[in-house]
Amino acid sequence: MPTCPLCTPEHETILWQDTNCRIILVPDVHYGGFCRVIWKVHVKEMSDLGAKQRQHFMAVVFGVEEVLRETLRPDKINLASLGNQVPHLHWHVIPRFADDAHFPDPIWATAQRTGQTHAVDPVVLMQRLSMRLGEPLQG
Amino acid sequence: MPTCPLCTPEHETILWQDTNCRIILVPDVHYGGFCRVIWKVHVKEMSDLGAKQRQHFMAVVFGVEEVLRETLRPDKINLASLGNQVPHLHWHVIPRFADDAHFPDPIWATAQRTGQTHAVDPVVLMQRLSMRLGEPLQG
Repeated sequence: MPTCPLCTPEHETILWQDTNCRIILVPDVHYGGFCRVIWKVHVKEMSDLGAKQRQHFMAVVFGVEEVLRETLRPDKINLASLGNQVPHLHWHVIPRFADDAHFPDPIWATAQRTGQTHAVDPVVLMQRLSMRLGEPLQG
Repeated sequence: MPTCPLCTPEHETILWQDTNCRIILVPDVHYGGFCRVIWKVHVKEMSDLGAKQRQHFMAVVFGVEEVLRETLRPDKINLASLGNQVPHLHWHVIPRFADDAHFPDPIWATAQRTGQTHAVDPVVLMQRLSMRLGEPLQG
């Protein structure tokens, strides 16, 4: 899909990838460890994937959750597949903290405070994702 | 957890359940087919479950997605596990329409319009969930 920003990405920080999906670090000033897991093929809904593909995709999403928990010790992990604006399957994996800008509301609600950003080193995430999920596909 | 509203629920419309989880219809005036899949045991994060439990939970979530798609033909399905307010695992499965109150934003953002409600008959959902997921546990 030439008009889809997830089919023709620009300036992504890719933390890990295999042939099916890639994990990127979301450039969000409020949420340091916010990751996105993107299915490489332009597919709209989880139920458009086969059972094995769904299972693989979720295993990667839960791997990101585990790495963010061990790296950042957040108060909660938020997972969401929305895609109303970009109907190309992607999962938001968001480490949440009691002192972040929106807690305890979802990050899409009105901010409650300026909020603390909990920074994370992308290289550490890359290393831990490789340990958890296996060596990434290069390129 | 006696203080947890998902451990001691009141006035739930249960559409389907097994020994591990239950599916309820969320009483949301804007979102007729909004379902929630609740893990019965008080567990905080998906990565606190074992791999088989996670897989079962997600299979139920994707079953709800399929039933909502065939019943309501929404423009998009939104899936989310947040739990900042109630840290007891539950998945939101939300059928979204271009003319609903928040589209294309998430339902937690500021409403953009009054919005159309796309009503659904709970009995139809119950029947289709049983066909998709198997006979529900009674009680």
